[in-house]
Amino acid sequence: MARDSQGARRGGRRGRQERTDEPGPIAPPYLTRQIPTFDILSEEGVARIEEESENLLCEIGIEFRDHPETLEYFRKAGATVEGVLVKFERGMCREIIQNSAPTTFQQHARNPERHVMIGGDAMVFSPLYGAPFVRDLDGERRYATIDDFNNFIRLSHQTPTMHHTGGTICEPTDIPVSKRHLDMVYGHIRHSDKPFMGAVTSGWQAQDTMDMTRMVFGAETFDSQCCVLGMINPTSPLVYDKDALESLHVYAANGQGTVVTPFVIAGASGPVTPASMLAQLFAEGMAGMALSQLIRPGSPTIFGINSMGLNMRTGAPVRFDESWKCVLGCGQLSRRLGVPFRCGGASTNSKIPDAQAGYESALYLNYTVQSGVNFLIHAAGSLELGLCISYEKFLLDCEMLGAISLMADGIDTSDSAFALADYAVTGPGGNFLAAEHTLARYKTAFFQSELFDSLSFEQWRDAGSNDAPARANLDVQTQLANFEEPAIDPGLDEALLDFIKTRKAVLPDSYV
Amino acid sequence: MARDSQGARRGGRRGRQERTDEPGPIAPPYLTRQIPTFDILSEEGVARIEEESENLLCEIGIEFRDHPETLEYFRKAGATVEGVLVKFERGMCREIIQNSAPTTFQQHARNPERHVMIGGDAMVFSPLYGAPFVRDLDGERRYATIDDFNNFIRLSHQTPTMHHTGGTICEPTDIPVSKRHLDMVYGHIRHSDKPFMGAVTSGWQAQDTMDMTRMVFGAETFDSQCCVLGMINPTSPLVYDKDALESLHVYAANGQGTVVTPFVIAGASGPVTPASMLAQLFAEGMAGMALSQLIRPGSPTIFGINSMGLNMRTGAPVRFDESWKCVLGCGQLSRRLGVPFRCGGASTNSKIPDAQAGYESALYLNYTVQSGVNFLIHAAGSLELGLCISYEKFLLDCEMLGAISLMADGIDTSDSAFALADYAVTGPGGNFLAAEHTLARYKTAFFQSELFDSLSFEQWRDAGSNDAPARANLDVQTQLANFEEPAIDPGLDEALLDFIKTRKAVLPDSYV
Repeated sequence: MARDSQGARRGGRRGRQERTDEPGPIAPPYLTRQIPTFDILSEEGVARIEEESENLLCEIGIEFRDHPETLEYFRKAGATVEGVLVKFERGMCREIIQNSAPTTFQQHARNPERHVMIGGDAMVFSPLYGAPFVRDLDGERRYATIDDFNNFIRLSHQTPTMHHTGGTICEPTDIPVSKRHLDMVYGHIRHSDKPFMGAVTSGWQAQDTMDMTRMVFGAETFDSQCCVLGMINPTSPLVYDKDALESLHVYAANGQGTVVTPFVIAGASGPVTPASMLAQLFAEGMAGMALSQLIRPGSPTIFGINSMGLNMRTGAPVRFDESWKCVLGCGQLSRRLGVPFRCGGASTNSKIPDAQAGYESALYLNYTVQSGVNFLIHAAGSLELGLCISYEKFLLDCEMLGAISLMADGIDTSDSAFALADYAVTGPGGNFLAAEHTLARYKTAFFQSELFDSLSFEQWRDAGSNDAPARANLDVQTQLANFEEPAIDPGLDEALLDFIKTRKAVLPDSYV
Repeated sequence: MARDSQGARRGGRRGRQERTDEPGPIAPPYLTRQIPTFDILSEEGVARIEEESENLLCEIGIEFRDHPETLEYFRKAGATVEGVLVKFERGMCREIIQNSAPTTFQQHARNPERHVMIGGDAMVFSPLYGAPFVRDLDGERRYATIDDFNNFIRLSHQTPTMHHTGGTICEPTDIPVSKRHLDMVYGHIRHSDKPFMGAVTSGWQAQDTMDMTRMVFGAETFDSQCCVLGMINPTSPLVYDKDALESLHVYAANGQGTVVTPFVIAGASGPVTPASMLAQLFAEGMAGMALSQLIRPGSPTIFGINSMGLNMRTGAPVRFDESWKCVLGCGQLSRRLGVPFRCGGASTNSKIPDAQAGYESALYLNYTVQSGVNFLIHAAGSLELGLCISYEKFLLDCEMLGAISLMADGIDTSDSAFALADYAVTGPGGNFLAAEHTLARYKTAFFQSELFDSLSFEQWRDAGSNDAPARANLDVQTQLANFEEPAIDPGLDEALLDFIKTRKAVLPDSYV
């Protein structure tokens, strides 16, 4: 079943409802933003934040713990190393990055029609990353399993608005921590042919990812192209620990993509004002990206961010205006530096896919798109600020991505967009339903949604008064029941399974 | 109870939770936008749409039906009048408007601390307008009554994010159509001291509004200041009917504000492309605004718009990317013309305050703010694209307005926003909870929400697993139970009631 077929264009449901059309090329593998970015900061404001980032890098410094190799790279590059603390001359990280990091690069997919561009005006959407819990189709909240993980790969694969299957969508808690990375990488490869992310929990798990990815793409492609991305998280404020550094080294040394993503919680792992959060996020990001370029100049690297505010009454993290502002501001910082930008996504504090989930997810998602995001993580499925993934919300978020994707097309003001000749026929007070201009366009003019109800009240009531999650629930069931696995070379599949078996035989069982 | 007191600042709940603080000045009566507008069109794109609007005004023309006085105004101004069809030379309407219409004006409120500015960077939020149905606190959908109407005035009065009580929030269907305008205007005056809108269903109902408003503000203020706004809707495409023209004349002749608001449904009352919808909206709006200036040069007039797309499968109107684009484009057209802009708001197709309602409302609301809206109608309460008002959704929308309001503050990049000195104390890996920079700011640093849950999963579960509407339901009950009517001069109150009694005695009972 070619769900992701021609009719798909951008809409979540539009793709599906037209799936009976004649076969055609697959949906665009990524979006091209045709609207401006929303630049919340003035030029002076951006410069002031850049200056403060340099102050942090120079005067406070960053600790790189338990990884002497990193210290050696920085020492050779001219930084001041005091124990594990590294201080950078003003402008040094920026210069290293700008000397060799690509502004735009291509990530390969198993299916060449699904290669994505990352950078510039290109936008790539990928699902939630890292949820330990799942809210399942029975409304139960429980620990996620490998079956859930693979189901979300399948849903990501057949949703046209999802361009990438992401990484640790949810944690397969039924498999030992020491082994589950193998099943996850295999899941990405087997249940989709879209691009994906690999393991970063340690250096050797990153290396397993490299080995499996190399088997998929072949040595020649793997050694010269970006075939997998890895998420590199510093331990804010101003620290990189051993696991992050080991993983960064493995990905960069192999020429694979690093998504260097500091995470600042205002008032905890950073200060409370958006300007100071921005300065810290950028300083931490620049240090990690510079390291990737010292390890292998020209290796793809992405500036990623995550940030939260706090509800000062409860102490709980929240995503309101501070986070929105950080997303928009970091987009500007990223463009001035000249690297691709990662942020996201459909994030909410809500425990269930209710109205709050809708408000919060839509706004955060929209600001990420307006920030000029190139690689959007957490684009679908998130509840509890990412602690829990919901099947129902996954499809609702995808539907919203469809509408936002059309927004990113901008407004066509070429002559054919206007209808003056039809007014001459229709006249004042007329109806445009049968106008030539309408008839030529009505099939593709609008975002068509089924999950987002637009029936009359009476029609909706007579159809069972379902709310949006109830409609999504039915749709998830249908999609999973009808899923057809993408083709894979049987030899490759066997080789991957052999590799996993061999590795699992020597790895200990560890659940922590 | 001073809900709308100092602590309020911008937040919906922030205002309320700090209401036990010492009394202070009321919340800002309107917002000042400190972020850029989101300009979706290029300069050339805006110019092309302006050109097409002039083509419509000049080559197709606009019909002004059953109102010879209007035709006479336009004939004198130099337009070509053929029957009821008026054709305008290119640039004529623009010139009339730019010669005398104010770019910014003040609307007076009964409480002088609540006067609002309309235009420039000022933003004024007002509730839903015109719902025949209400979804009440028992979840029942029924026809709205005058009690509902007055309840929504009360909620608007005490919500800091609502600056204006709007107009026909919902239809008091338990009062004859011929008389209900009197009760509505009285409700606005009696249950709030914020600014409001009056009746526009006919010329004589508009005149009753003038008479009552003059009683409130006194002849001197009423004759020289804007004390009430009226919504003027052409009958798209390209027609103004008698009631709209009569009302426009009454408001403009009295120097009161006209909110000239064309309403285009793509593929029905206009063409299907955003560019052509924009051209029609602007042409229709300019004709009405020009008329206001011919009637009384300098009378306040606002360019308003409403637009919908269509679900081509069901034929139902929807608000996705086409409507979002119209909002943003019309903001640009409005600024180039130099008049205040009205659009809005928290709009959704959903029948209930579910996830769909959240997604759709948040996005539409956000684009209106980013369009540079000056007067935002439908900011809270809307379901079924405005056919139904919901108590629960009213407060949820207000909460979202609080967060979006803080967004509009932009990012402070002055030196005090940064925390370099604290990093020297905290160091890499430290915690900012007790940092000086944090302690000095944490009370006001974040948007504080109660309706939008940010508890842990376990806390939320133990508190009853309520969804957002359930929390809002309780809050509506509390707010209405504790409502204190704003003070009013007893003589004025009596005079208004006498006026209403006298008018009702001579008016027929008509329910259609």
